[in-house]
Amino acid sequence: MKEIYLDNAATTKVSDEVVRAMQPYYTDIYANSSSKHAIGVKAREAVEKARKIIADKMGAKPSEIIFTSGGTESNNLALKGLFYANYPAKNHIVTTKIEHDSVLNICRWLEKQGAKVTYLKVDKEGFISLADLDKAITTKTFLVSVIHGNNEIGTIQNIEAIGKLCKEKGVLFHTDACQSFTKVPISVNKMNVDLITLNAHKIHGPKGVGALYVREGIKISPLLHGGGQEKGLRSGTENVPSVVGFAKAVELCKDSDIKKMIMLRNKLIKGLLDIPDVQLNGSINNRLCNNINVSFKGIDGETLLAYLERYGIYCSAGSACMSNTSEKSHVLKAIGLTEKEIESSLRISLSRYNTQKEIDFFVGKVKEIVKKLRNI
Amino acid sequence: MKEIYLDNAATTKVSDEVVRAMQPYYTDIYANSSSKHAIGVKAREAVEKARKIIADKMGAKPSEIIFTSGGTESNNLALKGLFYANYPAKNHIVTTKIEHDSVLNICRWLEKQGAKVTYLKVDKEGFISLADLDKAITTKTFLVSVIHGNNEIGTIQNIEAIGKLCKEKGVLFHTDACQSFTKVPISVNKMNVDLITLNAHKIHGPKGVGALYVREGIKISPLLHGGGQEKGLRSGTENVPSVVGFAKAVELCKDSDIKKMIMLRNKLIKGLLDIPDVQLNGSINNRLCNNINVSFKGIDGETLLAYLERYGIYCSAGSACMSNTSEKSHVLKAIGLTEKEIESSLRISLSRYNTQKEIDFFVGKVKEIVKKLRNI
Repeated sequence: MKEIYLDNAATTKVSDEVVRAMQPYYTDIYANSSSKHAIGVKAREAVEKARKIIADKMGAKPSEIIFTSGGTESNNLALKGLFYANYPAKNHIVTTKIEHDSVLNICRWLEKQGAKVTYLKVDKEGFISLADLDKAITTKTFLVSVIHGNNEIGTIQNIEAIGKLCKEKGVLFHTDACQSFTKVPISVNKMNVDLITLNAHKIHGPKGVGALYVREGIKISPLLHGGGQEKGLRSGTENVPSVVGFAKAVELCKDSDIKKMIMLRNKLIKGLLDIPDVQLNGSINNRLCNNINVSFKGIDGETLLAYLERYGIYCSAGSACMSNTSEKSHVLKAIGLTEKEIESSLRISLSRYNTQKEIDFFVGKVKEIVKKLRNI
Repeated sequence: MKEIYLDNAATTKVSDEVVRAMQPYYTDIYANSSSKHAIGVKAREAVEKARKIIADKMGAKPSEIIFTSGGTESNNLALKGLFYANYPAKNHIVTTKIEHDSVLNICRWLEKQGAKVTYLKVDKEGFISLADLDKAITTKTFLVSVIHGNNEIGTIQNIEAIGKLCKEKGVLFHTDACQSFTKVPISVNKMNVDLITLNAHKIHGPKGVGALYVREGIKISPLLHGGGQEKGLRSGTENVPSVVGFAKAVELCKDSDIKKMIMLRNKLIKGLLDIPDVQLNGSINNRLCNNINVSFKGIDGETLLAYLERYGIYCSAGSACMSNTSEKSHVLKAIGLTEKEIESSLRISLSRYNTQKEIDFFVGKVKEIVKKLRNI
């Protein structure tokens, strides 16, 4: 049975080219990139080349990229790093009710340390209101943090407008772009973003590596203290092979992949909406190219998933990060879904490796199973 | 020219078996180990198997192992995690003057947050005094943190005696075992250690992965907040391939390798001490099997290194982690070396891949170059 992997928002297959790019840095150019000798310098050059590739993708300077162990660490570094750099002079953060768990749980922890946090509501498609944001910002606000492409419903916020407002108000703006990076064009200057969270494993790169873009001149306090790597902002031996793999993954992302995913996504949405009593959650127009989130009236999402697995189809009933808790999706709740609608939801997330044939097979099986379950 | 790599305290070559063990988790079993579906469960099983292998190596329970991004993060999690769990009721840490930069820089940062830190002096071989430790512990002390095998001079502390004292005094005991793990037997119960920092890249495993052993029942506050992975103590998508590689690296460490390294180390020390005006830094008897640290009177260490590189020989004039700063080694200073002796020092660190032939060649070249430099 061929596997049909439709859970790419949780993580992706590492592409063969990425694996090949990393290989020499395990067994050949394996030195510590902080070592001064020639093989250390070779490793250093690989790290700096990778940094430039990632910076270029967003119109940033290489010196503005800090490598981390992933999206969660980048979010922690951004929020806590700015908190410690600004507190107690400023103590207020504005974020949203639909952030990834890492941003929300960091905010909850920072509240215990003295921070005040405003969690903006979103409309039924998952968008924040600029007027709400405007009202929320006070003289004590040091940061606005809004997720770029949502990991559950795929809603892409109007980052450019948010960035413009933040700039006018004189507050820093951070966005978690783990799901959107390479899928939605990002320009740090055009969008007025000051900090951006990135990771590799959502774009066919390795797990355990990410980055934080920090605009030149912004002071943040490090989260990991130690040997002073990454200009003192992120200590720890640099993960040379993974950083190289991350950059290779970025290089491999093509516009044609986005077009392909949009085509497959639209076909998939159309196919599922053909089934009676199915609703699309999130936005129709401003949606990540690889995200589909739907609710099947009267169906238990987990049961539907279990049936789909019989055919080698893997997707998700919530975000994978949430599987560690039994809580219901805070994102679906924030866009106004009922408990029943949340329980009957499915997240399908595509990659460039998915095919038309897989999508057709998937839609066919969902139709079959939903019909069967509704007849029970 | 064949490379002779003698900088294994900075980092090691990833062994081919480790690379092979990781491979399937990039492109085959690549799912998120927090995903509930069958392929997520497969990834989860790999993580748990790795956890057991690492726990077994120290007589620990798998549930006591938290995976991290490396030694620096583990040290940060241990010290900051305990600080936040104990402060303000208790605020005092006892550590040493010869810790790795990560522990020292964490302590300096914690001092700004309200911690009091005692930095124990060491004798000329690098040992702390138990009497000093005894005197330093107060009713406000929540933690004693002493490095197991030193990264620069290789001195192995008497962890068992320190652990016994800490237990009697009712304070927690953490040790950074990045350099000693698999080289010196560790038994968490026999040694009364409560927290242990481990990493993979010093033992032919991948960079970017480590672990923290935390004895059951000890409360620590997480450092990275997010999706609640690692029982809520370390959020972030689990780095499945690297965790698997870490465990494989542990499995590959054999007692015969230690014997081989001891033999090569002793031969190397003997060869270097044959040169006039050379002194061994650190302990003769309680020394890591792979560490040699020597000072060559009247020679500049950096110059000696540069000459050695001409022959494809790579070692270090200080610990690699320190190359980010221009500061002189705080470890060599702590054992009483003069500025001149520090500047004339070399750290040579072996691995199981080094050969007798390499050592002979190395010693020969050092003799030649030292003679030449002294004649200039």
